[in-house]
Amino acid sequence: MEEFYMKVAIEEARKAEKIGEVPIGAIVVFQGEIVGRGYNLREKDQDPTAHAEMIAIQEAAERLGSWRLIDCDLYVTLEPCPMCAGAIIQSRVKRVIFGTLDPKAGCVGSLMNLLQDTRFNHQTEIQSGVLQQECSDLLTQFFRGIREKRKEAKRNRVLDQSNA
Amino acid sequence: MEEFYMKVAIEEARKAEKIGEVPIGAIVVFQGEIVGRGYNLREKDQDPTAHAEMIAIQEAAERLGSWRLIDCDLYVTLEPCPMCAGAIIQSRVKRVIFGTLDPKAGCVGSLMNLLQDTRFNHQTEIQSGVLQQECSDLLTQFFRGIREKRKEAKRNRVLDQSNA
Repeated sequence: MEEFYMKVAIEEARKAEKIGEVPIGAIVVFQGEIVGRGYNLREKDQDPTAHAEMIAIQEAAERLGSWRLIDCDLYVTLEPCPMCAGAIIQSRVKRVIFGTLDPKAGCVGSLMNLLQDTRFNHQTEIQSGVLQQECSDLLTQFFRGIREKRKEAKRNRVLDQSNA
Repeated sequence: MEEFYMKVAIEEARKAEKIGEVPIGAIVVFQGEIVGRGYNLREKDQDPTAHAEMIAIQEAAERLGSWRLIDCDLYVTLEPCPMCAGAIIQSRVKRVIFGTLDPKAGCVGSLMNLLQDTRFNHQTEIQSGVLQQECSDLLTQFFRGIREKRKEAKRNRVLDQSNA
């Protein structure tokens, strides 16, 4: 069941990839139904808060008519950052299922675990590593593609200069 | 100068208070100009992410045409929660100035200090305690008002029952 929903989150991530955004996708599930979907839109919208999880949470809250996403599960391809972990706490999401770890900014186990810090007024169940390889490959391939494009652009600049 | 801008953030907080929202306000300042304003709209919008800081950051990014709020200062009446602290990191805000501490959920010194955690790719200057008393009084009076309304409602119910 977790893999089924993670595949939908991966579909969201692929939408980001197609428009040159870092491929991260998220969905919110309530009673088996997908009530929110989101993918990273930071560059397109030039909005620092337009992460996949934020968009999925906002859509779910609108759909359910409540800021409290009680009994909702959030699936996301990458471990949430502090902002998204904070939004998960704020919205009282019951369970977070994520694909792969983010050792640089992940706040659900990597750098810290905001979702199970008992000083906050809400704690969340966590499941990690669902379709980990696929979620990780999405990102690795995206960044490899960027590096290759940069190298090619540099090569072309050098060629242009030597021909000038 | 800090007090001047904090007063504007307090004006924002009062807009929240007027519509029954927890009175928290924020502004973003770039080169002396206010480029973003926000007040808490969680209940009205039923949006768990509609905190003052988030709204001010989103407005500033739209206004400046960039998700990077480089050289921007953020003024907020209450110490930011993890979500808002995360959004501050994401948007590369240079300096955060806040009024009063939030011992229950504050992540800029109270429970932790996300804004100066060197494991993230951005750190923020911090100034706290600007118009502290005024910012704190806003919240104290708001919650006192709520408690009094609840007590009155309870008293009226008891009277209704004894008259029934």
